[in-house]
Amino acid sequence: MLADVPAAPFPIPTAGGGPTYRVGIVGASGYTGAELMRLLAGHPNFELEVMTGDSKAGTAVADLYPSLALAYRGRFFEAYTPEIVDGLDVVFCGLPHGVSMGVIPEIIDNVGVVVDLGSDFRLKNPQLYPDWYGAEHVAPEYLPEAAYGLPELFRSDIAEARLIAATGCNAATATLTLAPLLAAGLVEPDGIIINLITGVSGAGRPPKENTTFCTVDENVTAYGLLTHRHTPEIEQALSVSTGRDVTVLFTPHLAPLNRGILASCYGRPTRSLDTGEVLEAMADYYRDEPFVVVDHRSPSTKAVTGSNAVHLTGRVDPRTGLVMGVGVLDNLMKGASGMAVQCANIAIGLPETTGLSTVGVYP
Amino acid sequence: MLADVPAAPFPIPTAGGGPTYRVGIVGASGYTGAELMRLLAGHPNFELEVMTGDSKAGTAVADLYPSLALAYRGRFFEAYTPEIVDGLDVVFCGLPHGVSMGVIPEIIDNVGVVVDLGSDFRLKNPQLYPDWYGAEHVAPEYLPEAAYGLPELFRSDIAEARLIAATGCNAATATLTLAPLLAAGLVEPDGIIINLITGVSGAGRPPKENTTFCTVDENVTAYGLLTHRHTPEIEQALSVSTGRDVTVLFTPHLAPLNRGILASCYGRPTRSLDTGEVLEAMADYYRDEPFVVVDHRSPSTKAVTGSNAVHLTGRVDPRTGLVMGVGVLDNLMKGASGMAVQCANIAIGLPETTGLSTVGVYP
Amino acid sequence: MLADVPAAPFPIPTAGGGPTYRVGIVGASGYTGAELMRLLAGHPNFELEVMTGDSKAGTAVADLYPSLALAYRGRFFEAYTPEIVDGLDVVFCGLPHGVSMGVIPEIIDNVGVVVDLGSDFRLKNPQLYPDWYGAEHVAPEYLPEAAYGLPELFRSDIAEARLIAATGCNAATATLTLAPLLAAGLVEPDGIIINLITGVSGAGRPPKENTTFCTVDENVTAYGLLTHRHTPEIEQALSVSTGRDVTVLFTPHLAPLNRGILASCYGRPTRSLDTGEVLEAMADYYRDEPFVVVDHRSPSTKAVTGSNAVHLTGRVDPRTGLVMGVGVLDNLMKGASGMAVQCANIAIGLPETTGLSTVGVYP
Amino acid sequence: MLADVPAAPFPIPTAGGGPTYRVGIVGASGYTGAELMRLLAGHPNFELEVMTGDSKAGTAVADLYPSLALAYRGRFFEAYTPEIVDGLDVVFCGLPHGVSMGVIPEIIDNVGVVVDLGSDFRLKNPQLYPDWYGAEHVAPEYLPEAAYGLPELFRSDIAEARLIAATGCNAATATLTLAPLLAAGLVEPDGIIINLITGVSGAGRPPKENTTFCTVDENVTAYGLLTHRHTPEIEQALSVSTGRDVTVLFTPHLAPLNRGILASCYGRPTRSLDTGEVLEAMADYYRDEPFVVVDHRSPSTKAVTGSNAVHLTGRVDPRTGLVMGVGVLDNLMKGASGMAVQCANIAIGLPETTGLSTVGVYP
Repeated sequence: MLADVPAAPFPIPTAGGGPTYRVGIVGASGYTGAELMRLLAGHPNFELEVMTGDSKAGTAVADLYPSLALAYRGRFFEAYTPEIVDGLDVVFCGLPHGVSMGVIPEIIDNVGVVVDLGSDFRLKNPQLYPDWYGAEHVAPEYLPEAAYGLPELFRSDIAEARLIAATGCNAATATLTLAPLLAAGLVEPDGIIINLITGVSGAGRPPKENTTFCTVDENVTAYGLLTHRHTPEIEQALSVSTGRDVTVLFTPHLAPLNRGILASCYGRPTRSLDTGEVLEAMADYYRDEPFVVVDHRSPSTKAVTGSNAVHLTGRVDPRTGLVMGVGVLDNLMKGASGMAVQCANIAIGLPETTGLSTVGVYP
Repeated sequence: MLADVPAAPFPIPTAGGGPTYRVGIVGASGYTGAELMRLLAGHPNFELEVMTGDSKAGTAVADLYPSLALAYRGRFFEAYTPEIVDGLDVVFCGLPHGVSMGVIPEIIDNVGVVVDLGSDFRLKNPQLYPDWYGAEHVAPEYLPEAAYGLPELFRSDIAEARLIAATGCNAATATLTLAPLLAAGLVEPDGIIINLITGVSGAGRPPKENTTFCTVDENVTAYGLLTHRHTPEIEQALSVSTGRDVTVLFTPHLAPLNRGILASCYGRPTRSLDTGEVLEAMADYYRDEPFVVVDHRSPSTKAVTGSNAVHLTGRVDPRTGLVMGVGVLDNLMKGASGMAVQCANIAIGLPETTGLSTVGVYP
Repeated sequence: MLADVPAAPFPIPTAGGGPTYRVGIVGASGYTGAELMRLLAGHPNFELEVMTGDSKAGTAVADLYPSLALAYRGRFFEAYTPEIVDGLDVVFCGLPHGVSMGVIPEIIDNVGVVVDLGSDFRLKNPQLYPDWYGAEHVAPEYLPEAAYGLPELFRSDIAEARLIAATGCNAATATLTLAPLLAAGLVEPDGIIINLITGVSGAGRPPKENTTFCTVDENVTAYGLLTHRHTPEIEQALSVSTGRDVTVLFTPHLAPLNRGILASCYGRPTRSLDTGEVLEAMADYYRDEPFVVVDHRSPSTKAVTGSNAVHLTGRVDPRTGLVMGVGVLDNLMKGASGMAVQCANIAIGLPETTGLSTVGVYP
Repeated sequence: MLADVPAAPFPIPTAGGGPTYRVGIVGASGYTGAELMRLLAGHPNFELEVMTGDSKAGTAVADLYPSLALAYRGRFFEAYTPEIVDGLDVVFCGLPHGVSMGVIPEIIDNVGVVVDLGSDFRLKNPQLYPDWYGAEHVAPEYLPEAAYGLPELFRSDIAEARLIAATGCNAATATLTLAPLLAAGLVEPDGIIINLITGVSGAGRPPKENTTFCTVDENVTAYGLLTHRHTPEIEQALSVSTGRDVTVLFTPHLAPLNRGILASCYGRPTRSLDTGEVLEAMADYYRDEPFVVVDHRSPSTKAVTGSNAVHLTGRVDPRTGLVMGVGVLDNLMKGASGMAVQCANIAIGLPETTGLSTVGVYP
């Protein structure tokens, strides 16, 4: 094809049969938006009708993301207005924190389901926003109804929600690793240590001093020491899901990779334990989950690149008695856009795995 | 799921409708084999029944490739015997050069279509094997019937073949970039310079001194100076497709990336030219191709990661008069396994794009 | 040490004996400035007294570059004024193009030697600045006296100059590779093809859309197609040094590495040649050079990381007759700051290799 | 220079004055050997006379390590015999574990000082060798006299030793981070968690399945879960230096970088603490150390690349009460060859910093 030849008015391929739902993305020009566009290009039941991106309004999709050139030829980012998404079945929001809380009240009554990929509706306690994000919440009345978008823990909430706050990438990794251990009462709920290593795409597309190639490449560093904003999100998810008051020390480290998060989690055992018990608790907890692997292998971030899979393992150290869980996922997939599509599938009533690969692009 | 729980006997998901063809991979444990397995996990009409890998026979797929754990749980690599693939509709061969030429005669009469990802049946002239590969061909009687597996240039041959020699990754990149310029008579056919930069996965899975992380990372180097084996393959493809006797100086460079090839090709113009004419010739040549983008952007390997897309551009330098073409593809996809599936789709009679993404996993 | 304990007033270590020269860096906060600071920390005869960096004035060196923490504790970047460098023996300028041409006339009469790492004084023909850089030169009267800072070709000019325009990183690589072949009359001077692969640090420290980690990592792309500003610099250096009118098509490619440039250069032979003649011409040309290796190995950028070395090889392709030269260097060392120190050593009268390593940091 | 022109018989440059000591490396062909050769090329008092490497005997240094071409032209690796090092002042051993314990008894009585970079003489308790390394120690009679080569903790032992067991790279990072906290009695000695991220060069030069580029690049994974052999080394160093019985859970993670280790260490406080107290304890402990930086910045591995520096910080989490220390070093420098040269300088009586840079090669 010649890229500048006008395309057919609606070129997104659809496969299989079934109903078609009309979809929009508000804030589509960032990496989570681009990943949503990649997934929706292959989703048989979702038709992406509009994607907004204020700073890129009028830009051809292919000029910002040549990776999408063939699937979105002749398509452009548009400027956001509330009306632009009116009547759509699903709207994904890929906006910076603090922005979603203004946009979603403008649109939620006129669309089917809203899946917010940002952090504005994840925390139930409104006081946590000024404490951790530095500003009051402007739409706290929506917090009670927002489902926390982590299907493995909160599937039934998601199925009934019209507003879903998809879990953050770090929180998803840590929570999925620790939830089985806490739910089974194997580790003490306080003073849990989460040592996380993440790739760079989680920091978003806009250039920053700490995400240039020369800063990140051949480098490993911890960031947000003691103060990372995903801390209360992890504590909330683990506390709510297990009914105990969980406290964690969460320390992310930046490593030179595009995608991928690995969480190494450490807790004190509630009783004498061995590795088999820990693995069994994890396997039980996720026995019917389509995206979760539990086994004895040490998980690799690379095994899940481009997929919605989560790989988990666990150990008990006989020397110190400490319990260890390790989990990996792709931060743009199971940590963001893949998780968001999974939530949308659930909310809409589609098979949960529709349009989502379990197979990583390797190597 | 718990990885060691026995799986259903045949867990590969199929989507959509249509016929199902039975498929095998001989030599499945290398990177092209793993990529085929990834693609076949999502292919709605191909059911992968058997994958052999002699050095890995008895190994669980998930142990060698955790990325495939969810799609291939309970599946194992098997030892090759000719009988193991008897009656299959499609057999892919991912064997080292020199091995396919022994295996394919053993199986070709008992299967539907064979797609060889190796180099054993690519060159028509038997003398080129001892010259460039150092050994006589042991089955030269199959060379005439083998279709060269580059659909954009040889689609009709592929449609009628029972043996397809999928093009090499370097040859695919260079040939797709240069063919339009030669076909349109814009560049002289002799003394064409192909300066190619490739990622590391093309070198295969087994550890080698020149592909360790510490050797490759933060490094760029040229290899195979003057003597790379893809040289005659490029010359043959360009000569056959354009009817002229093409000679090239082909120099690959290894760069620190997993996937991706970029070919910068330089030729002398046959007449006074400008960039518009070159771009138009490329666009005309690929006007109806589903996997080829031609435009004015400088192509990026990263835009095609995990996809079967090819991105091309061209220039004429007004200062020196030289013509330049630049092309990129993913060496494991359009340069190997994606190309092989595309060829198999054509030979079987399926829509050519079945099971193949045009969208890159980015970033 | 505790970093915030006040340091001794002048902590830079000196080794060996000999005279000490007072040195300044104007524009020290970028990567070439930081590399100069690294080199000067180990230079036995240069004492770095002042480093300016307007956007970073008042910033502790260790806060911007923790790598320099131990050598520069208690030291800060200052704001530039012409007076701040008055009386210094050597001033290095690490300013953006267009800025040096304003600063250097302000200081050159009050200091010993100025070594400019930017491009403002490299081209002798004033008309080339508006043509390639988009703006008139504001101090063309200094162009005739500026020595081109490539010692292997212009050592005697450098020894007598008070203004030295250190060669650009791409130009250094290409010129050092091609000069022997042109000087020996082995290749035609017109239509030379320079296909260059470079790391990212050459693009400087400030964040840009095209140098974020996620843009560069796992990516290769060509940039500045037909129009890169180092083109006239290469042509000038080769034309002046060989007395012939050289024209080149220069195409840089960005690869995911911090440091390193590899130039693959192609030319038409003036007569029938073989590889031995080409290698001999290179070896003869650089026989007494302390930083240049010529041999039959294909050079690797990684072999020269952190060193001032240049590695070169050459070939003649018997199939096409074309001549090929390949060269590598570290763009921040022999392509910038190392080259600048080498030039300063020459101009001051010190042994040329003082403070410069020939050994790469590997792996 | 032309690489194959015979070099002067002894080309290693020496700078400054002072005595010259004759040096050898047994097992020089690995990465720690190459790093020693890089350092010795710039060391003013050490002359490297012999380097053995059995698998590479007869190989030119420049062929295995082009980075060393200019400093070691005309030099070759030799086969080891005990006699080859007779009479040398310093012998470094870069041999695999299990080999040094056979070699060192053969040579120690005929040389001045032996610095072993391997693990054979690090553990004082002979029983730990079969427990952690799987084989009995064959020369346990040398264990009592071997000094543990970590100058910041055991400087006086090193000064008096003829056999020095240079500390392992992981152990060095963890021990230097934790020792001040334990020595000051700020953290409980049991159940300390060491979560470490390391580059790949620590795995050595020979190709392995888990260190190919395609395995490591874009990947993070934990390895040696619960069983890494540096565990008892860390416990011994911390226990001996602080007089308490320390137990740790040590988990290394492999990240895609050549060099660099970052250790994130977590412990329970012995009393209520704040971050200032922890930083002060670290600063006090290392107040006069030439290679250690303590400050409030989160350390980056990249800041110490190619240098012998260690960067440290600490925190107390007011939410969980836990104490955290973070340290970085270059595994081939302060974690191996730089540390070994530092030890040799001490043992010989040279200034401790001779030939060792504190400045990282950045970026």
